[in-house]
Amino acid sequence: MKRIMLIVAYDGTNYSGWQVQPCADTIEGRLNRALTELLRENITVIGASRTDAGVHSMGNVAVFDTESPIPAERIALAVNARLPGDIIVQKSLEVGGDFHPRKCDCVKTYEYRIFTGRMENPQLARYTWHRYGTLDIEAMRRAGQFLTGEHDFTSFCAVASDAESKVRTIYSVEVERDRDLVLIRVRGNGFLYNMVRIIAGTLLFVGIGRIKPEDIPHILEGRDRRLAGTTAPAKGLTQLGIIYINETGKGAEFCQGT
Amino acid sequence: MKRIMLIVAYDGTNYSGWQVQPCADTIEGRLNRALTELLRENITVIGASRTDAGVHSMGNVAVFDTESPIPAERIALAVNARLPGDIIVQKSLEVGGDFHPRKCDCVKTYEYRIFTGRMENPQLARYTWHRYGTLDIEAMRRAGQFLTGEHDFTSFCAVASDAESKVRTIYSVEVERDRDLVLIRVRGNGFLYNMVRIIAGTLLFVGIGRIKPEDIPHILEGRDRRLAGTTAPAKGLTQLGIIYINETGKGAEFCQGT
Repeated sequence: MKRIMLIVAYDGTNYSGWQVQPCADTIEGRLNRALTELLRENITVIGASRTDAGVHSMGNVAVFDTESPIPAERIALAVNARLPGDIIVQKSLEVGGDFHPRKCDCVKTYEYRIFTGRMENPQLARYTWHRYGTLDIEAMRRAGQFLTGEHDFTSFCAVASDAESKVRTIYSVEVERDRDLVLIRVRGNGFLYNMVRIIAGTLLFVGIGRIKPEDIPHILEGRDRRLAGTTAPAKGLTQLGIIYINETGKGAEFCQGT
Repeated sequence: MKRIMLIVAYDGTNYSGWQVQPCADTIEGRLNRALTELLRENITVIGASRTDAGVHSMGNVAVFDTESPIPAERIALAVNARLPGDIIVQKSLEVGGDFHPRKCDCVKTYEYRIFTGRMENPQLARYTWHRYGTLDIEAMRRAGQFLTGEHDFTSFCAVASDAESKVRTIYSVEVERDRDLVLIRVRGNGFLYNMVRIIAGTLLFVGIGRIKPEDIPHILEGRDRRLAGTTAPAKGLTQLGIIYINETGKGAEFCQGT
């Protein structure tokens, strides 16, 4: 018996998110089915991030146990042949039998993309939120500074969340502009339900002057979802990757694009 | 009666190319139908570049005549409401009644994208050719230099072409790398059937060492399609835009992303 880790990239447009649900097409469901067929064992993966419907990833992590003699690193190509073209395993490797992708210390990186051109760009439409008009990038950066560090992020969490603690640590918030594209890159040790999308929506409000950067500390202190900005749409969000910190020497390898 | 120019962007994945064909879904067909509905006149557009099935554009040009009182610049938004999300008119403007998009001097810019990572990237797969492995960018640039200028491009033209003259002028060939993405940008006054895709396939052969940059002059002189490299797949090709040279003062406005 060995434990295999997969780095999984996907275009989330056509899926009802990561997590298996009855009567819905999900990333996890597709992986379970393809691996079960390939390895002729009943496989159920454990995912690191249960991304929402429409959210994309360049490097989500899934693990499963198998008795198969297929070398770990060859599973990626073999399983890709049984997956649709919008779910692509980037890499497969053996990990320790006690490794659990949601219980180990890690840095997760998400990128939220806003397209600010007048008319939507058909090659970016699936991966961006279209908001026409100039954004104040400097103000957005200052707001991002107020979000970094350890905070209670209740104001940046969907009300439906049942997470026990709303305290998380954000390591960095970067805001960059590349012509009509504004990129918000957020690194943290974990995120609450809809947290990155609420951060993106709040920074958008800062960018159009509806929230001031200096309001962010009060929004955090208020611990009330209604104080923050809108929840930005799922399609603009891409998980770039996950780095596991204590997996000796392997951390960098787990990560895509971060 | 006035003549309207449209700058049209599209993701060509789901279409049988630009040109209207019986029983096929085409960009031109979609535009004709949407404009005919919107303006309540029988509209047939004239396109600048009749791009192949699967080829994308950020700024193809189409013109048509109309009696409609709708201001020219408002047609873009109005027609977008009647077009699918993968065809987006970027701009509409009135032009002179004698302007013909295939008979005026212009600079057309195309970009061919090769993704060289080991596993395909789901967000780039629709817009890139996946070829795993390192490419010799410097050699590709040197080969591109040999292609610039006025040449008989018979060796870089699909045999099926019935163009009378195979002489065209290429103004520049740029090759850039951005991590696993290799971009080939070609500017010219016009291109033969499949010409940019054969240039891209030939530069790929140069990048993997199968053709030497110094072979390019002989390939041109040979005037034989079999001397050049493969025809790169359509999905990696995006027309970036068209600049019309003699349309006084308007040239820059016609262009997207060039």
